[in-house]
Amino acid sequence: MHKTIAFLGLGQMGEPMARHLLQAGFAVRVYNRTAAKAAALRQAGAEVVANPAEAVEPGGIVVSMLANDAALEEVTLGHPGVGGIAEALGEGGLHISMSTVSPATASRLAAVHAEHGGCYVAAPVFGRPEAAAARKLWICVSGAAKAKERARPLFDAMGQGVHDFGDDPAAANVVKLAGNFLIASAIEALGEALALGEKNGIERIALAGFFSQTIFACPIYQNYGRSIAEQKYTPPGFRLALGMKDINLVLDAAAASQVPMPLASLLHDRLLASLANGRADLDWTALALGISADAGLGAQQTTSSSIPAK
Amino acid sequence: MHKTIAFLGLGQMGEPMARHLLQAGFAVRVYNRTAAKAAALRQAGAEVVANPAEAVEPGGIVVSMLANDAALEEVTLGHPGVGGIAEALGEGGLHISMSTVSPATASRLAAVHAEHGGCYVAAPVFGRPEAAAARKLWICVSGAAKAKERARPLFDAMGQGVHDFGDDPAAANVVKLAGNFLIASAIEALGEALALGEKNGIERIALAGFFSQTIFACPIYQNYGRSIAEQKYTPPGFRLALGMKDINLVLDAAAASQVPMPLASLLHDRLLASLANGRADLDWTALALGISADAGLGAQQTTSSSIPAK
Amino acid sequence: MHKTIAFLGLGQMGEPMARHLLQAGFAVRVYNRTAAKAAALRQAGAEVVANPAEAVEPGGIVVSMLANDAALEEVTLGHPGVGGIAEALGEGGLHISMSTVSPATASRLAAVHAEHGGCYVAAPVFGRPEAAAARKLWICVSGAAKAKERARPLFDAMGQGVHDFGDDPAAANVVKLAGNFLIASAIEALGEALALGEKNGIERIALAGFFSQTIFACPIYQNYGRSIAEQKYTPPGFRLALGMKDINLVLDAAAASQVPMPLASLLHDRLLASLANGRADLDWTALALGISADAGLGAQQTTSSSIPAK
Amino acid sequence: MHKTIAFLGLGQMGEPMARHLLQAGFAVRVYNRTAAKAAALRQAGAEVVANPAEAVEPGGIVVSMLANDAALEEVTLGHPGVGGIAEALGEGGLHISMSTVSPATASRLAAVHAEHGGCYVAAPVFGRPEAAAARKLWICVSGAAKAKERARPLFDAMGQGVHDFGDDPAAANVVKLAGNFLIASAIEALGEALALGEKNGIERIALAGFFSQTIFACPIYQNYGRSIAEQKYTPPGFRLALGMKDINLVLDAAAASQVPMPLASLLHDRLLASLANGRADLDWTALALGISADAGLGAQQTTSSSIPAK
Repeated sequence: MHKTIAFLGLGQMGEPMARHLLQAGFAVRVYNRTAAKAAALRQAGAEVVANPAEAVEPGGIVVSMLANDAALEEVTLGHPGVGGIAEALGEGGLHISMSTVSPATASRLAAVHAEHGGCYVAAPVFGRPEAAAARKLWICVSGAAKAKERARPLFDAMGQGVHDFGDDPAAANVVKLAGNFLIASAIEALGEALALGEKNGIERIALAGFFSQTIFACPIYQNYGRSIAEQKYTPPGFRLALGMKDINLVLDAAAASQVPMPLASLLHDRLLASLANGRADLDWTALALGISADAGLGAQQTTSSSIPAK
Repeated sequence: MHKTIAFLGLGQMGEPMARHLLQAGFAVRVYNRTAAKAAALRQAGAEVVANPAEAVEPGGIVVSMLANDAALEEVTLGHPGVGGIAEALGEGGLHISMSTVSPATASRLAAVHAEHGGCYVAAPVFGRPEAAAARKLWICVSGAAKAKERARPLFDAMGQGVHDFGDDPAAANVVKLAGNFLIASAIEALGEALALGEKNGIERIALAGFFSQTIFACPIYQNYGRSIAEQKYTPPGFRLALGMKDINLVLDAAAASQVPMPLASLLHDRLLASLANGRADLDWTALALGISADAGLGAQQTTSSSIPAK
Repeated sequence: MHKTIAFLGLGQMGEPMARHLLQAGFAVRVYNRTAAKAAALRQAGAEVVANPAEAVEPGGIVVSMLANDAALEEVTLGHPGVGGIAEALGEGGLHISMSTVSPATASRLAAVHAEHGGCYVAAPVFGRPEAAAARKLWICVSGAAKAKERARPLFDAMGQGVHDFGDDPAAANVVKLAGNFLIASAIEALGEALALGEKNGIERIALAGFFSQTIFACPIYQNYGRSIAEQKYTPPGFRLALGMKDINLVLDAAAASQVPMPLASLLHDRLLASLANGRADLDWTALALGISADAGLGAQQTTSSSIPAK
Repeated sequence: MHKTIAFLGLGQMGEPMARHLLQAGFAVRVYNRTAAKAAALRQAGAEVVANPAEAVEPGGIVVSMLANDAALEEVTLGHPGVGGIAEALGEGGLHISMSTVSPATASRLAAVHAEHGGCYVAAPVFGRPEAAAARKLWICVSGAAKAKERARPLFDAMGQGVHDFGDDPAAANVVKLAGNFLIASAIEALGEALALGEKNGIERIALAGFFSQTIFACPIYQNYGRSIAEQKYTPPGFRLALGMKDINLVLDAAAASQVPMPLASLLHDRLLASLANGRADLDWTALALGISADAGLGAQQTTSSSIPAK
């Protein structure tokens, strides 16, 4: 019999993920900083609580899907007057951490859980909110074998596949960062290629369409390629400000392990220019607006209704 | 009834392409600068001639698949004492130009053919020699509608799909350059991602394998990803020196149309460093060796027999 | 006794240089593509002719100061119906080539002069039009020792110092390109530093002033630093379009000798974005406008009268 | 009458600076983490103490010249069981902070001193150890006017000039970072220019010498230019690892204020590659070794005795 699962963080990603757990028959107790977001989950059968530790049962399982390293640290460690989940889970507890955070944070928090007799499994995901809603997430995991085994039914309820990267809790986070770096690189590459085409009389949509049906026939080039071709950057699937955060995590991990990544540096500068020009709340594909501007091209944003997202 | 098709250029790509024309029932007359390469085609039924113009019938069709702009210009325009194919084809002739050349060269040669009453169709291809042998090339075409229609049966014999980019003979070349730029960008991105993983304890092959089965499940990431993960850079599917040539064509086209492409510049510098360090004859994925060197990683090249090419 | 010196090219640089030769007592015969520019020189005592070869005396000396490689090639080699100066100078002639051109062009034209029994000395200069007017140019020379000796009195009349880079006529051009690269690099560096200061509340002029009086107390940081600090980009001392040309020459020479120069690539992209955004006719320090735009800073151009040029 | 000045940090820079205070007649009490370094100062008349707070007199003056932000924070704030100098100085105290630290750290520590009724003046310096020994430092200051006035006699004893950047204690640190960025940019530019020259047959020393005597006749190009030309990277005047630290501070400040600095990113990648290849303890001009390696050039390091440092 399942214990009740604690689920922390009901943003664009967390909300559909928690919903899938409910649909798969798990009892779920949710916490979100903004309480209003929890209401819909309550209707779907979740219990709603007012702070992270309250969601947790000793020796139980908590899933977290939070905005950044600071938020994850806060719920895990607590703060003056408010206990953290590491202590609340205690002996035999399992923290399945699905946020995109730094490998260093993962290592640190894994050690904290270990001190309390619990376990930390890193399980960041690939997929945008639509993929989360469609149970199409790819999940990368790393951590202790037994803990990963225990987490497995939850992964099956939320994603379409699980890839195991070994025992080190930091490892899956490195994979996640590497993946977001690859995605951002593809955005930059497509943005430059489409600008070159556009100034040579080739329609952006025709050019992106060709590649995404042939040598680059895969989700990233198909979905991002369409956004960049249409220059449709709202509503954001992933906010540009979050993209900046992730590329900073990439560069931090690269610096810590002494790996020069000039393409990551280029992305850093491109995203930073986007922020400085007021694009923080667009989708991160909007970094291509800077490419067009540098080429002297004005961007005609297509109306939001033009083409349905895949 | 078909006239005999002239086929110029029997390199790693041209040879299997000419062979497919023969297999599809076309009569083919071949020319190659290095005569030895033509011998195998003769056994397959091709007629072999000693210079380009001799291969051509007035008003007929010639297919060219040559190393670079200079080679294409030479066979088209001829040189002192040797007539070019533009003149030899004359009125009603069709030149199907499948090499990777600059849009500017395409425009210039199209004008020359027009002066002689002929037509020039640009039809560069995507696919490595294995794809050419397997009739899996993707063909991008641009030029006059009637000429493209006339060329169609040949395209069907050589590739798995044809994409039309309009009337301008230069256009398909821009698409080809954009595509090679996208490929090189993916190589650089993968190289940096795998170096980051490697220095953080994640196996190159596991990391590349994950991405190429999920969010980047497409030929480029699968095939190139494997080479880069295994650090297997011989035999070359596409020589690094040719990659340098193509990125130079990209940058030339970008400069002519005033499109800053910083990622192309990064690739330029990476490839140039590779040449300066004696890697001209490796596959162009070997640009990743520079990434590893910058990270202080030695490269262990896997033995050539390790994993069969896809 | 001096023969009459031929002087070809009366642009912002050539005009004051030719004037100094007149003032030093040389007889000077000038040619400029735009005849109007030659009028002022006639009043100063120069003879004005209608085409390059007409300016030249067999076995004499010609000084050229032209816009680019193509212009230099045209006057040297002539074109159908018009003789070039290499032939006109013939045996014993000396061509002092002071334009900024590629090392490859220098080598080629030196060979042409040698075929006619003449000699080619490369003598590109450092200094803006004000420096040319003030006889403050720095002259880099390379070529045959005797030819350099023969040219010496002319150099003394035009510049404040001569630096010898040996026998190879290409060498001084490499030095000139290296120098323009260093200058453009300093412009980019200053532009980034001042943008950083500006967004942190430090006045551009105070910041540039500090450095140019202390650790960077030299002409480039003083003069260019002031332009960039004041964001005063007209009238151009050196047009941005010419800066683009020169950085292209740098990259061509770097590619030919297999030297990756990522900072030159960055400058290339910056200048190309400047051209694409309509800044070809501003001073090349205006590349810093792109830096400010990327930082979300509007540029307040100071009025042209604000500070006298040094 | 002077109170005794506390001086914290006796590294390559701090030691000669403290010595100048003694020579100017100040009573000086020194602290250094490694006690051995203080011995020489004792002979010159300094009092030596065992921890930072002990060096300080209430309401007095302390000068700090430390390795990084963490060291400065530790001495200022203290740590469990050891009081910091902010508390020890208390009401009326003055902390003259001469280390290269982030503007953010400066702001934070200034607030801490203010809480204790004291004052923090930022006074980072330009100049290598030789300049410190020769009293040739340039000092940038910012902070409250009265505090800067009180610090003035000390500045006069240690440097050749003081430049005031206003009331904000963070400002002078931005200037310092901007300056180190400009220096590193000049190193990169020189490294690329000399590699271009070298591969085109021009001697590194001749090329650097020309520029440093003409358009770049200033200390940075003269001193650094010689190191890079001679490829003499030991002993380090400024360790490459510290250069990496400073460029990271530049990029942090640039990110905080949303200023894309692609040249700083290039320097970051270059320095990181240098660290990954074991060059942390060379002089930071050794970043040019990466440029030479990319160009396929081996570096011949001149013997350490070849040319005396300026």
